[in-house]
Amino acid sequence: MEEKMILIPPKSGYSLELQRGQCLKVLCTEGSQVADLVAFNRQDFTEVLSNGKTFDYEQTLRLTTGNRLHSNLSNCMLEIIADSCGIHDFLLAPCCPETMRRFYNMEGPSPNCRDNLYDALAGYGIERGQIPTAFNIFMNVSVDESMGIEVLPPVAKSGDYVVFRAGMDLIVGITACSAGASNNYSFSAIEVQIQDIA
Amino acid sequence: MEEKMILIPPKSGYSLELQRGQCLKVLCTEGSQVADLVAFNRQDFTEVLSNGKTFDYEQTLRLTTGNRLHSNLSNCMLEIIADSCGIHDFLLAPCCPETMRRFYNMEGPSPNCRDNLYDALAGYGIERGQIPTAFNIFMNVSVDESMGIEVLPPVAKSGDYVVFRAGMDLIVGITACSAGASNNYSFSAIEVQIQDIA
Repeated sequence: MEEKMILIPPKSGYSLELQRGQCLKVLCTEGSQVADLVAFNRQDFTEVLSNGKTFDYEQTLRLTTGNRLHSNLSNCMLEIIADSCGIHDFLLAPCCPETMRRFYNMEGPSPNCRDNLYDALAGYGIERGQIPTAFNIFMNVSVDESMGIEVLPPVAKSGDYVVFRAGMDLIVGITACSAGASNNYSFSAIEVQIQDIA
Repeated sequence: MEEKMILIPPKSGYSLELQRGQCLKVLCTEGSQVADLVAFNRQDFTEVLSNGKTFDYEQTLRLTTGNRLHSNLSNCMLEIIADSCGIHDFLLAPCCPETMRRFYNMEGPSPNCRDNLYDALAGYGIERGQIPTAFNIFMNVSVDESMGIEVLPPVAKSGDYVVFRAGMDLIVGITACSAGASNNYSFSAIEVQIQDIA
């Protein structure tokens, strides 16, 4: 098994390509750090990750080992084949300048996942408006009895990981998230490994 | 107040334009009927309704009077200004041929909201892959303690309605939904009224 390891610095983004069958391991280096992941069909960028199709086909908001992340065109983009944490989110869109203004009173430019994903993917010609709601690895969002939602500190510890297997050839964008509440107000690197299963 | 009324037949779709400030009233004619609604910025079709941004800013999955439906670019597209029902869904993507195959063993062509929205919007040059997760008016989806989700019969009765006010100039796609479980296995028309508040 060959591996390629990349360290994504705090509050930044990265893009990579996966061939169908290749695996992507995402590691929480220091704990309590969220990684926003988006995916595009490498042959047709209008096919993207869809939380709505995924919730429908998997019949749960709690996605973990054995669950598949589906595209807007109903194809399997990524299957979760290992997950040492079990708590992730697919409800909330990537943090953006308006998130920072609205929740953190940050009026000026500041790092945010939407723009970090856009910058990382811009070389492919992907537009800002094409960035979908991300699968937010290690993000901890509760839903209460009256359907209210709350962002809680991640439960992920140092060394926690998720492994995804690509269901098609993909362009993947991934961040070390920049939003305070999502990361318990401390920011660390996310490690990713691309694994070629021999 | 001027009104324009349109009846959307069972298992079909329709598109309309709203100017900022205009209101759209959506009525359940016979009860138990879901209407999938999508919206695009009339000046820039890459700006679309976003469940992820809406959940984030409204901090609830239970959207009703006073809540706003936001775009992927964080602008208010529609505000709910009246709602006689209170139970709607923004988790699940429009039903599509794969929905019909997977949940209803329907292998051949059959009406579905994704293609009805696409057909209704095709005149604007909107692609199939651009249809976002819809705001599913009158759709009743439960979330249990372990985050499992289930499609339940709508609680909407004949005459129940929701009124939206447009926050920008919009292209709106809307259906009378075609999926069995979502509509308690009976299908009826959806009435829409465009209201010009004088």
